[in-house]
Amino acid sequence: MQPHFSAVMVRDAEARIAPLARRTPVFSSTSINQVAGVEVHFKCENLQRGGAFKIRGASNLILSIPEEDLSRGVVAFSSGNHAQAVAMAAKHLGTHATIVMPEDAPQGKLKATRTHGATIITYNRLRESREDIAAQIMKQTGATLVPPFDHPLVMAGQGTAALELLEVFPHLDAIIAPVGGGGLLAGCATIAKALDPDIQVFGAEPERANDTYLSLRAGHRVEISTPDTIADGLRSPQPGALTFPVLQRYIENVLLVSEDEIRATVKLLLMRMKLLVEPSGAVGAAAVLHHKLPANVRSIGVILSGGNLDFEDLITY
Amino acid sequence: MQPHFSAVMVRDAEARIAPLARRTPVFSSTSINQVAGVEVHFKCENLQRGGAFKIRGASNLILSIPEEDLSRGVVAFSSGNHAQAVAMAAKHLGTHATIVMPEDAPQGKLKATRTHGATIITYNRLRESREDIAAQIMKQTGATLVPPFDHPLVMAGQGTAALELLEVFPHLDAIIAPVGGGGLLAGCATIAKALDPDIQVFGAEPERANDTYLSLRAGHRVEISTPDTIADGLRSPQPGALTFPVLQRYIENVLLVSEDEIRATVKLLLMRMKLLVEPSGAVGAAAVLHHKLPANVRSIGVILSGGNLDFEDLITY
Repeated sequence: MQPHFSAVMVRDAEARIAPLARRTPVFSSTSINQVAGVEVHFKCENLQRGGAFKIRGASNLILSIPEEDLSRGVVAFSSGNHAQAVAMAAKHLGTHATIVMPEDAPQGKLKATRTHGATIITYNRLRESREDIAAQIMKQTGATLVPPFDHPLVMAGQGTAALELLEVFPHLDAIIAPVGGGGLLAGCATIAKALDPDIQVFGAEPERANDTYLSLRAGHRVEISTPDTIADGLRSPQPGALTFPVLQRYIENVLLVSEDEIRATVKLLLMRMKLLVEPSGAVGAAAVLHHKLPANVRSIGVILSGGNLDFEDLITY
Repeated sequence: MQPHFSAVMVRDAEARIAPLARRTPVFSSTSINQVAGVEVHFKCENLQRGGAFKIRGASNLILSIPEEDLSRGVVAFSSGNHAQAVAMAAKHLGTHATIVMPEDAPQGKLKATRTHGATIITYNRLRESREDIAAQIMKQTGATLVPPFDHPLVMAGQGTAALELLEVFPHLDAIIAPVGGGGLLAGCATIAKALDPDIQVFGAEPERANDTYLSLRAGHRVEISTPDTIADGLRSPQPGALTFPVLQRYIENVLLVSEDEIRATVKLLLMRMKLLVEPSGAVGAAAVLHHKLPANVRSIGVILSGGNLDFEDLITY
């Protein structure tokens, strides 16, 4: 049986996460509209606490943990924005986070996660399983696992990004969000279709990380080899067991973008909008700016899902 | 006799420019507060239309031109953000802008100004006077001059940046803004002191472009040789005849920052706040982040005055 997931859970999440997540601004630009050929409204999750939407889902789950369990801490495995989000939410609630990260993760990300008071446990990608390490920690400490996408409360939290956007712009023809494991898009699609059954919902993936695109065509979850893409947050090799049926039900299509289109979009958003968006966070914008939308979409909300990017990487674009 | 300038003119400007200028957002960051050691609220004029605060003053003046004069067009000399602002405001009002720019101005700035429908007249910096060229255009066409800073309506328009900031955060200990010709700071200081006589108002200048700093100490306007600073918008060699007495009356001090401090601040604002701010726009933030404030300032509003910066320059920081 599928765990229950519905738009009501996104509405509940909105109130629950208010103490932890920012209501991020929505920006637009006439010069960007001219490039895109459609009216574009950017939901700026790069300006979210921790620099990405991940705090929405992480805090919605962590705030739902019963007090007696919460005191035993939380655990997550992630090398990216989810790790920081879990650490921040745990710190806010006075509990302890353990994050399992690969030993070759960027020093900046290790440091940022440690800054929020989390314990980092590193592992060797080739010889060890992060799932096994996390399971052992849970067994030893009674800590609760906070999965990066495949949990109804995480999906519900991520969906608040679209809920906030549609509260401000209720008459958009469409919305689009990046797809890694699919948590953000599943949450956003569910609330968007509940608010407006006629809205079109799109996912965006790098051509090189097209697991959800392929899965939707196959009608079942397809696993690809670990994608090699600049969009490092979208490297999950297949959609989630819980997110995929939601995507199958609600989304029109996944639009694919090239590595060059992603780089050009990061640069364009920086120069025209003055906003730093990381490659993973810019794939939805890349699809819109490179005219991948069907012609009947005249206005769209684009989730810019994160902005955590090393300066050394940016300057190579 | 000095032309009249007072806080009432800033209030009038706020309503007048509403169709043209954005109410820009105010952002803060706990990690930036930790670096600064004070509570910092950033007024994001880099997210203003045209990428800088200049549209405030330009549109306040242009919207005040009598209709019979407006039809004869406007003229400005500027190689930077003011040129774009005048072109945008003129286009919005259906009149014609002529901009006098040096022939060696960056192609990007020439192009951006032309995009807004302005006529560009280029001149040779060494052999020709931009003032003479502008005077000739005015004589031939009856066009109205829109000065970059030294006009009460321009100062009043620029002051709306501080007015908006203090409407949201009325209890700040201080505000700080960059000083080029002094239009932004004069307008901001006037309205800030009218709203709260106890607020401290600071200017910020590059060490290499310290004309206002020197002028305040001398008690009269001091002209320096054309400054060589990365903050290209702050290269005016002396404060304005109209702005200087206002600064003398209202501001505590001008804080000086080094070129390295400016570069580091542009990078920090980009990586932590995800905001692109140009060097000229970042000097106020640079002063705060490098602890140049007196110890009794515990909270401050910082005007990030613009975000127009070539990618090729950014990547050298």
